Amino acid sequence: LPRTQESVAISADGDSWFLLNASPEVRQQLESFPRLHPRSLRDTPLAGVVLTNGDLDHCLGLLSLRESQRLVAYATDHVRADFMEQNSFARTLERFDGQFTWRALRLGEAESLRRADGTESGLRVTAFTVLGKPPLHARRTPDAEDNVGLRIEEPRTGAVLAYISGVGGPSPSLEALTRGARAVFFDGTFWSNDELVSLGVVTRTARDMSHWPLGDADGSLAYLERLEVPRRILIHVNNSNPILREDSAERRALGAAGVEVAFDGMELSL
Amino acid sequence: LPRTQESVAISADGDSWFLLNASPEVRQQLESFPRLHPRSLRDTPLAGVVLTNGDLDHCLGLLSLRESQRLVAYATDHVRADFMEQNSFARTLERFDGQFTWRALRLGEAESLRRADGTESGLRVTAFTVLGKPPLHARRTPDAEDNVGLRIEEPRTGAVLAYISGVGGPSPSLEALTRGARAVFFDGTFWSNDELVSLGVVTRTARDMSHWPLGDADGSLAYLERLEVPRRILIHVNNSNPILREDSAERRALGAAGVEVAFDGMELSL
Repeated sequence: LPRTQESVAISADGDSWFLLNASPEVRQQLESFPRLHPRSLRDTPLAGVVLTNGDLDHCLGLLSLRESQRLVAYATDHVRADFMEQNSFARTLERFDGQFTWRALRLGEAESLRRADGTESGLRVTAFTVLGKPPLHARRTPDAEDNVGLRIEEPRTGAVLAYISGVGGPSPSLEALTRGARAVFFDGTFWSNDELVSLGVVTRTARDMSHWPLGDADGSLAYLERLEVPRRILIHVNNSNPILREDSAERRALGAAGVEVAFDGMELSL
Repeated sequence: LPRTQESVAISADGDSWFLLNASPEVRQQLESFPRLHPRSLRDTPLAGVVLTNGDLDHCLGLLSLRESQRLVAYATDHVRADFMEQNSFARTLERFDGQFTWRALRLGEAESLRRADGTESGLRVTAFTVLGKPPLHARRTPDAEDNVGLRIEEPRTGAVLAYISGVGGPSPSLEALTRGARAVFFDGTFWSNDELVSLGVVTRTARDMSHWPLGDADGSLAYLERLEVPRRILIHVNNSNPILREDSAERRALGAAGVEVAFDGMELSL
């Protein structure tokens, strides 16, 4: 199954859509999903983007969305500053007035997802800090705003989606993020802590990079197995992770725990 | 025919390859071309990249090449500085010693394309200034180094390829670039000067943006029709350009002039 880099599109009405993170492959991803195709030169179903952290694989796609449409970007102040304030490239998102509107996510405060014209989309998002680090290239001191999970609610139906695409380990915020959720997308970067070290690729372990390996004794798979959420879906899976092989023992362990692996074109209705 | 953004891979020996510009869609492009697939974790056929200017659609792909391989990037000092010196993102290309080596292109001086280990690839490149502008986001005064065409030679066979992917109009350098070439890739961004203005998308004309429209009375198609190069191929074609429609009058005009349109997967042997 093809798996481009992590990005999910959400919508309450099927008319306005928000991306959760904007991967470098965002153009290919938008092209593969007809409901996100532009309706005319200035009218696109894409209303905005919600960022979980400042990593390039989550943000770089913003620079491929510099068309004539008006977009709203939701992020914590730290994540916004890492992207907008140290990068001349980001000026391409300021070519015309209102091209990008940034709205601040504050930890624990629910925010209505609004289109560029200010109208509500029918979705609310609350960001909670989860274990992580500032992006390597930002070279600054860590902050609770560096890495967030998202609790996304549709007040009309009560549906809740939890989106936790990068997480270094357990924390009380995971309970707030996932309570009553019908589905959770969860960081599946690495299976084991020494996955890249044993391949000779790098010297830093999964935990050094603030990823919570799935298969360790105190790994995230044991957490997900116990989690009372109907759909538990791994996302942000590194190409070194053996769960990508359908016939691996690790993949069978996921199946036994009732945990899925996301793929391009996967759709959920909550 | 699918057409992702402009990028061409060249090789003298079929073993080491250089990209001419690195588009935001570079990962998808590398995946679609098996001869550029990695041979092992640290051994990839991709040796480096040659940049013609600092536009995002030419450079952004460098940030998707931040793996464990060592790469060489060829660019003028101005283009390198626009990319590396004002962008915290670029630090991800300095994660380990030797990850990226920059080699300066000096106008009119032939340069051997070398792999990261310093060995020659069998290709030489000479950059010549062509009409253009610094990238919008750089916000600096123009310089002759802002936008170059490439003359690529294989000394062993005498084969010459000219690569002129952005050009604002005629200049004497076009003769130096194309003399004796067996093929030329040429900027085909717009058909007419007011192409985007008439669509109501922007207020700047093709010439305002330093593009040489194909179809004007003094347009680039008349130049290409006269050019004595066996293969004349348009690249960097904007999605507003009517030549993309196989049944358009503009496409027929290209055919009458013996000019082709590049497409994904196109291969040339010179």
